[in-house]
Amino acid sequence: MDERQIIKWLKSRCRCKNRQVKLGIGDDTAVIDYNRNSYLLLTTDVVVENVHFKMQEATFRQIGRKALAVNISDIAAMGGNPLWALVSLGMEKKKADNYREIYTGILEIAEMFNIDIVGGNLSRSETLFVDIFLIGIVEKKKLILRNTARPGDIIFVTGTLGGAQKGKQFRFIPRVREAKEIIKSIKPSAMIDLSDGLASDARKLAEASGCGFEIETSKIPVSRDASEKNRISSALYDGEDYELLFTVSPEFVSLVPADIKGLPVTNIGRITRQKTFLLKYPDGKKAKIRGEKFKHFS
Amino acid sequence: MDERQIIKWLKSRCRCKNRQVKLGIGDDTAVIDYNRNSYLLLTTDVVVENVHFKMQEATFRQIGRKALAVNISDIAAMGGNPLWALVSLGMEKKKADNYREIYTGILEIAEMFNIDIVGGNLSRSETLFVDIFLIGIVEKKKLILRNTARPGDIIFVTGTLGGAQKGKQFRFIPRVREAKEIIKSIKPSAMIDLSDGLASDARKLAEASGCGFEIETSKIPVSRDASEKNRISSALYDGEDYELLFTVSPEFVSLVPADIKGLPVTNIGRITRQKTFLLKYPDGKKAKIRGEKFKHFS
Repeated sequence: MDERQIIKWLKSRCRCKNRQVKLGIGDDTAVIDYNRNSYLLLTTDVVVENVHFKMQEATFRQIGRKALAVNISDIAAMGGNPLWALVSLGMEKKKADNYREIYTGILEIAEMFNIDIVGGNLSRSETLFVDIFLIGIVEKKKLILRNTARPGDIIFVTGTLGGAQKGKQFRFIPRVREAKEIIKSIKPSAMIDLSDGLASDARKLAEASGCGFEIETSKIPVSRDASEKNRISSALYDGEDYELLFTVSPEFVSLVPADIKGLPVTNIGRITRQKTFLLKYPDGKKAKIRGEKFKHFS
Repeated sequence: MDERQIIKWLKSRCRCKNRQVKLGIGDDTAVIDYNRNSYLLLTTDVVVENVHFKMQEATFRQIGRKALAVNISDIAAMGGNPLWALVSLGMEKKKADNYREIYTGILEIAEMFNIDIVGGNLSRSETLFVDIFLIGIVEKKKLILRNTARPGDIIFVTGTLGGAQKGKQFRFIPRVREAKEIIKSIKPSAMIDLSDGLASDARKLAEASGCGFEIETSKIPVSRDASEKNRISSALYDGEDYELLFTVSPEFVSLVPADIKGLPVTNIGRITRQKTFLLKYPDGKKAKIRGEKFKHFS
């Protein structure tokens, strides 16, 4: 059973009963009624030793920073603002003093986004993990889901992709402000953050919308950090870019900014009615994208 | 650095800036403004392999059930109703199919309390953990904190204590309904749930309130499951009872029900101005309670 099947089973078992729940499992965050004009956004994501980092390759401070940053990225992808976080930390007893360093990393990025750490817990665990629960808020009219792209919509990404493992994975600044800038110019038809990699996340958005996509390899904005050996493959599959992928109806494409304070915003392809996931090469040849690479249970 | 010092350091670093946050780190849950009449309650607690259970002593279903139940107990201790949960699950790849069993346990108790599972994530992890974030709601006038007990207040506990490791730790039903029944009769001055054990949790409530306590050993309602060797010690230190401890101003003691649908409610002692934590024996002798036994980093 892979993550896709697990989520499908879960969705079938977890039908929400409370009327305040606008959206349960299946998007970057859950969506809950808050007041007349806003929704609450609820999300959780974890970083685990030997899965999301190796102890010898990351400082405790980097681990803490990343644990919160990946959650902020989920709130950004819904068009929201992060507000309150709870931190669940598991580590070996003898390493308890390192928790200050983890928290220093968490607070570094919490302060940048004005997030309050309102609770949490500490537990012993043979495997180090930092699990963060983040609540955000979004104006109802600015909420953007991943399952509302339409055939013909143009696909954009922010920034450059590939090679995040060289350092961006610990340094990235979640695209909260950029998402807001985009929404100010034009409300995207759908949006998702790029955590597992362009190929995998574009597919999630297209599948959730009942569509396919065609991405032009020559248009993909490849990072300087992408692998020299196969730069396109690096941009498609490396993951951890934490950029935004969003779709826009063709008539509004001219309203999409070319960059946001220097960060490029690039048209890379389009959503298709046909439910296939295609790469289009400069010579006009097309290839089906290879199986998505899930971070988890892969 | 023990958990107490860690929490102290954290509280000093995590001063909340958002005005909606009524209470951050330090109680069973965080408290956030929701609407005119209610607060949101935010809590997280985790169960970790080899710390909170051993694989050979618990089924996956029991582990899942317990992971949600301990969080519900925190909401109960604030006088609230649980509403929405997110589940963060870490397990070895080869054991992925067992996740259904974990979820079956989670859903078993979620359905009992009408809780919606609105999101979560799955990650590989060498150590199994189930980390749950639970949001609840409480009427503003019914919110009960742990730091508001006053000298002279009488201490009550629900149920019987000790020996929960014989089975109650996996079977207990969090005291949401009982908390409401108590609040209907008399609003306690303070309340906490008994997770780490009577000695430790009574001390947390008393310390948070700037007080001490005196508990009469002869009055402690000891469970049939408590250790035969030292029944009082078992009731004081075993932990995982998940009963409620609450305090009531002396003039209202007669309003406290003697039982709630058969569950005993027992007067076990009183809050003192002197910041000592005393046991009073039937012969009149008193002893300082031995150092609290924290679940974490102990």
